[in-house]
Amino acid sequence: MNTVTKTHIQVRYAETDQMGIAHHSCYAVWFEQARTEMIREAGIRYRDLEKMGLLLPLTGLDCRYKIPALYEDDLIIETSVVKLTAARISFGYRVLRDGTEIAAGQTDHAFVGADFKPLNIKKHFPQVFKTLCGFLTEDSQ
Amino acid sequence: MNTVTKTHIQVRYAETDQMGIAHHSCYAVWFEQARTEMIREAGIRYRDLEKMGLLLPLTGLDCRYKIPALYEDDLIIETSVVKLTAARISFGYRVLRDGTEIAAGQTDHAFVGADFKPLNIKKHFPQVFKTLCGFLTEDSQ
Amino acid sequence: MNTVTKTHIQVRYAETDQMGIAHHSCYAVWFEQARTEMIREAGIRYRDLEKMGLLLPLTGLDCRYKIPALYEDDLIIETSVVKLTAARISFGYRVLRDGTEIAAGQTDHAFVGADFKPLNIKKHFPQVFKTLCGFLTEDSQ
Amino acid sequence: MNTVTKTHIQVRYAETDQMGIAHHSCYAVWFEQARTEMIREAGIRYRDLEKMGLLLPLTGLDCRYKIPALYEDDLIIETSVVKLTAARISFGYRVLRDGTEIAAGQTDHAFVGADFKPLNIKKHFPQVFKTLCGFLTEDSQ
Repeated sequence: MNTVTKTHIQVRYAETDQMGIAHHSCYAVWFEQARTEMIREAGIRYRDLEKMGLLLPLTGLDCRYKIPALYEDDLIIETSVVKLTAARISFGYRVLRDGTEIAAGQTDHAFVGADFKPLNIKKHFPQVFKTLCGFLTEDSQ
Repeated sequence: MNTVTKTHIQVRYAETDQMGIAHHSCYAVWFEQARTEMIREAGIRYRDLEKMGLLLPLTGLDCRYKIPALYEDDLIIETSVVKLTAARISFGYRVLRDGTEIAAGQTDHAFVGADFKPLNIKKHFPQVFKTLCGFLTEDSQ
Repeated sequence: MNTVTKTHIQVRYAETDQMGIAHHSCYAVWFEQARTEMIREAGIRYRDLEKMGLLLPLTGLDCRYKIPALYEDDLIIETSVVKLTAARISFGYRVLRDGTEIAAGQTDHAFVGADFKPLNIKKHFPQVFKTLCGFLTEDSQ
Repeated sequence: MNTVTKTHIQVRYAETDQMGIAHHSCYAVWFEQARTEMIREAGIRYRDLEKMGLLLPLTGLDCRYKIPALYEDDLIIETSVVKLTAARISFGYRVLRDGTEIAAGQTDHAFVGADFKPLNIKKHFPQVFKTLCGFLTEDSQ
């Protein structure tokens, strides 16, 4: 399995602001889209995880903006799993335009149940855990 | 009870687009904020309605844009109930800046239960129905 | 030239609300994405139009919601030009899921210059006008 | 001058997601609203800065989420300037609900001109620089 997923995003008009660039809050939405696609590639639909009672709320978000993204820009988000335990997962993202990194970020998540209480994914969803392990980049293992 | 509620909205930076004006999709969000405040003035919190099993999903949205709204503009949304039956409700909105109407709109909603099936509000939530009736503008009655 | 453009949209997590459905304000954003793709198919990039000094701000938005859209739903937006004059243009949209229409809408736009003053597109941008004419559905001509 | 600004935010329905909590991308929008209010308290309108040719695009965003925010929650954002040089500024934010910190974050910005090139604010906008210095918390000085 490939440990890096590439997601195509095209900047929407509604995502621009009056500076004429993509608003910084949109990157978090793109990252979300990218990790959704990553786990879908492994045959898991995030909406099915939620129905099974597994939620991944964010506990942290970090983003560095180097070069602004513009309306109609075709961007590639490269996503990888940079950390994984039975209680938590972190995804890393690189935003590329024409091969140049214009931004990079990370999101941290806790595994919780429908009641928002911590949940040991290794114990309660061993198959999902195994799949996510497959995404771990070598230098994180 | 006053039949028109006035809600203050200040245009956020994230709501602007690269034309330098508030993006048209934001008006629907402001309308939502305005009707939330309207029913709160009557002592009903919309989140409590949802907990009681009463949802008001939109069935229609209409908005006419006359003059663009700009970043940091202080706007007043005047909200009223323009139609009300046991199955449906429609709210009307006027967006004012310094007393001038810059946009106007309407949202149509169905009363449904948590299962999204139609629900007779007059029968199942008579008290809520009565409160909403109080908002009906005279010419709608 | 085909008079109806089909745009694929996948519902993002950030677009859902606590009712568990896509928020109604997102449809306006999808419509925008759809008309951007429509004119791109004709070889025009909307961002180039803006650089040339031609803006298409909304003067009206109308949307009817029949069946809620859900997270990760794959939607098709069918876009067409329903009205066109030298001063104004209206686009029509149908939102389909698995071939079923779940929503439909229309946006009305004025042709204006960078100063937001009305602009005769037929006179100032005859080539763009001609291209847009090609999109007119037969029953609108 | 007070070095901490308090901004009231009420969670909008559109800001919730299907987990039933405020979507994490909204915090960046609230932070923006909060720093807009901070500098307005000092008599500067951010939109006037832009007209004068001074932009503050984000170069970094960091947010830690401790407790989810819910629809209609009344939140207080406490904003302060945590770093300031002639080239860059960083704002710190605490999100409070009923006195409890539910999230905290920081945004980093560069001072640039309308051409997005670095700009020495101390040299070109000494008065603005002086005002921003007044916001520096003591332990940052």
